[in-house]
Amino acid sequence: MVTKNQIKLVVNLKQKKYRTQHALFVVEGEKLVKELLQAGVEPLKIFVDGTWKGSGLGETELVSGAILKQMSSLKQPNGVLGVFYMPKPLKTEVSDWVVALDAVRDPGNLGTIIRLCDWFGIRELVCSMDTVDCYNPKVLQATMGSIARVNIVYAPLPEFLKNAKQPIFGAFMDGEPVYGRELPAKGILVMGNEANGISDEVGAWVTERISIPQFGGETAESLNVATATAILLNEIRR
Amino acid sequence: MVTKNQIKLVVNLKQKKYRTQHALFVVEGEKLVKELLQAGVEPLKIFVDGTWKGSGLGETELVSGAILKQMSSLKQPNGVLGVFYMPKPLKTEVSDWVVALDAVRDPGNLGTIIRLCDWFGIRELVCSMDTVDCYNPKVLQATMGSIARVNIVYAPLPEFLKNAKQPIFGAFMDGEPVYGRELPAKGILVMGNEANGISDEVGAWVTERISIPQFGGETAESLNVATATAILLNEIRR
Repeated sequence: MVTKNQIKLVVNLKQKKYRTQHALFVVEGEKLVKELLQAGVEPLKIFVDGTWKGSGLGETELVSGAILKQMSSLKQPNGVLGVFYMPKPLKTEVSDWVVALDAVRDPGNLGTIIRLCDWFGIRELVCSMDTVDCYNPKVLQATMGSIARVNIVYAPLPEFLKNAKQPIFGAFMDGEPVYGRELPAKGILVMGNEANGISDEVGAWVTERISIPQFGGETAESLNVATATAILLNEIRR
Repeated sequence: MVTKNQIKLVVNLKQKKYRTQHALFVVEGEKLVKELLQAGVEPLKIFVDGTWKGSGLGETELVSGAILKQMSSLKQPNGVLGVFYMPKPLKTEVSDWVVALDAVRDPGNLGTIIRLCDWFGIRELVCSMDTVDCYNPKVLQATMGSIARVNIVYAPLPEFLKNAKQPIFGAFMDGEPVYGRELPAKGILVMGNEANGISDEVGAWVTERISIPQFGGETAESLNVATATAILLNEIRR
């Protein structure tokens, strides 16, 4: 039987402060819950309602549709809601690239960037304190299971960069074209905010200002931060 | 004075069949309307309400907040709504790359891909008949002004590919790695549906199956179609 306190906990986890306090987060939908289980993320509890006819979620707790709706962040809950422990940091190679994000605000962009880090084998992602929370439901929707395979740390970026020993690359509209450049085996790639790019106080620590050349006769306004990250990680790995 | 018929026209333009019938579409927000004007797209009418204090939109028609809300697709209309004629096809070089989309359904993905084509100077985008409509408001939100700088055609893809003289590249999870390949000066790049990739009937016309190598130990599920397009267009142009 689900208790009132359990329901209250799940409802509270919609807010970042409770997620941080309990080191728990919520994902919804059979597909995403399965991916996290397969990725080895430990569940506290998986709730399902009577509409769910699937299998392969391990131990589940059946609740009424009304209770699942109360717990859910979705207008139309989809039958499965998992509460998971935040993954513990992975052991990573320090001799690789790190991605650092300066005030990325859009959950879909952060989710896509986490998935890109996973694809390109980047295991360390450092987010400025004002980057959107990676356990925000919309971020999780876009990351898929990748959240379990990338270490995500929130830290003041100028501090982090000040102590870094690797070369620090930053993406700027007016940076040097990245094509034909020798890129080192390790480094930090800084990507900026959707509207304003990299802030001055973070940019001050960038040692190499790079850009993606434009071919449309300089008419296109800019690339979305997630697509620009895709291109630059591809340049680093190719 | 705005007439009842004008209001009805704008409301109807929320539906694709009326957009096609009238060859008109709607964009909302000062920024996007300005971008289309700057890109040379011809407006039929630009409506504003009393909350708009800006300038630089040329001739505008002031309507009440209630009427703007009726015309708007947004929960919170933002003061400016432009009705534009669909742009006429640009003159393009036939000797360049063409992007073809097979059943891309997510408006954000199509919008991002149009913006990428613009950035990389690709002037021809061919969409399968079941690709999301490029004048859908959510697509326009993601394309920014790029809609005016890329020719977008809806056509049955197998037919289009059958008649093509260029080599046809298609992105497949199990394709040949794209790195280190010589890519020709012209060709067609086919990208598939978000969940199912390229369909069999379209895939049958693909002459070169390519993929983006994965570095995360083969754990990441897949790349989003817009980020994969970003990487492949970068490979074509670099």
